[in-house]
Amino acid sequence: MSLRKALLVVCDGMGDRVEREYGGETPLGIAKTPTLDRLAASGYVGLMDPVSPGIRPGSDYATTALLGYDPSIYYTGRGGLEAAGAGIDLKPGEVAFRCNFSTVDDSLTVIDRRAGRIEKGTTDLAETIREIKPRGVKGLRIDFRATVAHRGVLILKGKGLSRMVSDVDPHDNGVKILRCEPLDDSSAAKRTAAVVNSIVTQSFRIMRDHPVNLARVKEGKRPANIILPRGAGTLPGFKTLHELYDMKVACIAAVALVKGVCRIAGAELVNVEGATGGLDTNYEGKAWAAVKALENHDLTLLHVKATDVASHDGDFQKKASVIEKIDSALGKIMPSLNSESTYVIVTADHSTPVSVRDHSGNPVPLLISGPGVPSSGVSKFSENAVSRGNLGRLHGLDLMRIIADYLGKAKKLGF
Amino acid sequence: MSLRKALLVVCDGMGDRVEREYGGETPLGIAKTPTLDRLAASGYVGLMDPVSPGIRPGSDYATTALLGYDPSIYYTGRGGLEAAGAGIDLKPGEVAFRCNFSTVDDSLTVIDRRAGRIEKGTTDLAETIREIKPRGVKGLRIDFRATVAHRGVLILKGKGLSRMVSDVDPHDNGVKILRCEPLDDSSAAKRTAAVVNSIVTQSFRIMRDHPVNLARVKEGKRPANIILPRGAGTLPGFKTLHELYDMKVACIAAVALVKGVCRIAGAELVNVEGATGGLDTNYEGKAWAAVKALENHDLTLLHVKATDVASHDGDFQKKASVIEKIDSALGKIMPSLNSESTYVIVTADHSTPVSVRDHSGNPVPLLISGPGVPSSGVSKFSENAVSRGNLGRLHGLDLMRIIADYLGKAKKLGF
Repeated sequence: MSLRKALLVVCDGMGDRVEREYGGETPLGIAKTPTLDRLAASGYVGLMDPVSPGIRPGSDYATTALLGYDPSIYYTGRGGLEAAGAGIDLKPGEVAFRCNFSTVDDSLTVIDRRAGRIEKGTTDLAETIREIKPRGVKGLRIDFRATVAHRGVLILKGKGLSRMVSDVDPHDNGVKILRCEPLDDSSAAKRTAAVVNSIVTQSFRIMRDHPVNLARVKEGKRPANIILPRGAGTLPGFKTLHELYDMKVACIAAVALVKGVCRIAGAELVNVEGATGGLDTNYEGKAWAAVKALENHDLTLLHVKATDVASHDGDFQKKASVIEKIDSALGKIMPSLNSESTYVIVTADHSTPVSVRDHSGNPVPLLISGPGVPSSGVSKFSENAVSRGNLGRLHGLDLMRIIADYLGKAKKLGF
Repeated sequence: MSLRKALLVVCDGMGDRVEREYGGETPLGIAKTPTLDRLAASGYVGLMDPVSPGIRPGSDYATTALLGYDPSIYYTGRGGLEAAGAGIDLKPGEVAFRCNFSTVDDSLTVIDRRAGRIEKGTTDLAETIREIKPRGVKGLRIDFRATVAHRGVLILKGKGLSRMVSDVDPHDNGVKILRCEPLDDSSAAKRTAAVVNSIVTQSFRIMRDHPVNLARVKEGKRPANIILPRGAGTLPGFKTLHELYDMKVACIAAVALVKGVCRIAGAELVNVEGATGGLDTNYEGKAWAAVKALENHDLTLLHVKATDVASHDGDFQKKASVIEKIDSALGKIMPSLNSESTYVIVTADHSTPVSVRDHSGNPVPLLISGPGVPSSGVSKFSENAVSRGNLGRLHGLDLMRIIADYLGKAKKLGF
């Protein structure tokens, strides 16, 4: 038997609800997808609830499930995943926050949550932020890293910290920044909230007159004069897929949160030029990178964000056209995958109906094709068509176990 | 987007097993149900296990699940639900019992569990019962309320009580009443059992010569000379649907237990004239009340008991005809529901096969129709037809989450 491999394609938010004006179909249903249709017909197809029927997951929560970790146990907030996605390994007990470099006025009202979508100078600003000493707390150190554009990660290191604290980022412009509040009665949460508030206040004081910002103001740009932490998180305590299944995994994704979950699961992150996480991403480049990654990995997770972007835009046709680009890219690489030994699995991490413009609890379509998999005979890959497929209705947690089994990596329970 | 609403129709015990003499069909399968069939064809259809495959739930246990509360955690006995259904709010720690006013002879052998189906005078009897002082127990108070016909609720208030005690009601005529026994080794259960036995003994002493009974005997009626407690229960500790989903819920039901679960879940109970819980119930009146309730509620649960009554009677044709009456009533109101914004969900709380004359563990048919829901194309609403539907096989616990998601009330987990 040849060595088996699996390519898992996750189209972010691809699942949708039907629209009457499109003949009771979804974007996937109207998209021309010859490659996906061929894979669907020759493989298993069905519906999958990423978490459980009706549950609305974020991509981080859902990806945790798709990788085989029960998110009701292992999801420990955005911050830890975001940090991992930026290549920062949290240690147990440390608390990380996703941060924006933002612009506020003197009353701490948010002028621009993204500081004019600042691109340069954030590394210098980060260096200054790292020097902040939170007031009235001993034995606590902070780290801060600029990541992509206006984004950064704040890490608190020390004893007695908690992720149960609220966001400082008000998630909107034109309103005052929020106070970080404890979300439970623990002294750790109270202490953490006090530390965060002290850091935010000091960040404003040291950032507003920073040379990077003086230069930006001179150029008519908005200064990055504060950091706004949100999404406190700790390291999820899960074993890697290598530890669990002896599986070498690669992850090709542009979204930091998805990269973060995969990295903590032990995946090697593969960067692809032109992979933007946007509608203009390098679809084919990512697909070819997946082919290459499969050469020395058992499983490659290829995540495409563009489907979700079109969904949040509420654009049915655009979403269909993104799906066609994914299909086309997969069509290009398919001849380079050994069909005798390679499984191709295509699904979504959650539904983002264009009619809702946000994540929903609807199930997602799933296809699994490869050696030994029965032919569904279902000639179109769509939510409607696969609902009468040969796979029934699965949970997201089932997927990694099924993949591990086909790869010959599943451990037998009992004798 | 218009404000979304949902009508959840629960036909008690509607699910059934197929009968060879009816062409391998069920009562729902042979019933003429044009409205349900239309909803089924245009919506999701599938099978649902109210609790889990093969599990035989009572209506209270199953309704707990359908409302989204795991009954293995939250079901705390019949008494608390019965009390809630009668408008009595238990407090944490109180133990309630469903009671019958019954007729016993001097040897405490049951002559008639329902005391000649007594209708009048129970309020006076209840007043006398409330004055009972259980022997040898300090700091304990009792409450007793007459509810409908021969039914009542006994509530024990005080510290150190337990619901883990057995029934006094032997559930049959011609046998002696039972002693209430502790069902575990706790001192609370032993104490509670002793209290119950003392109350039952005293009830016989004070009720047999009560003026209400002296008058009944004179009229040749059976005296309500004892109370027989059963189904000890406490308040289930669940959050309301309003707290969980910001959902305003109405409940239209005649059965006290179903009303009780719904009331504890935060539903407003809507009374409908002629809603008897029997075969002669006011089907159309209940349906129109549901339309009205939807005006100021997000979700209306419309429960019809008659399907279960016909099932317990073991009458296949009668059950089919009850289903036709439900279909007809739904057909009348359908034009008054806005199809652009209203979901209609039809299912059963459990199966009660006419061949069994009792609840079974068979799955129940489920249909979900409304905006954004794909068409199943299944042209008949029946257990057989929906088993090849587009919804797969769900658990009862999934249902409320799916409804909340379609109503835009589901909270996102993760980012």
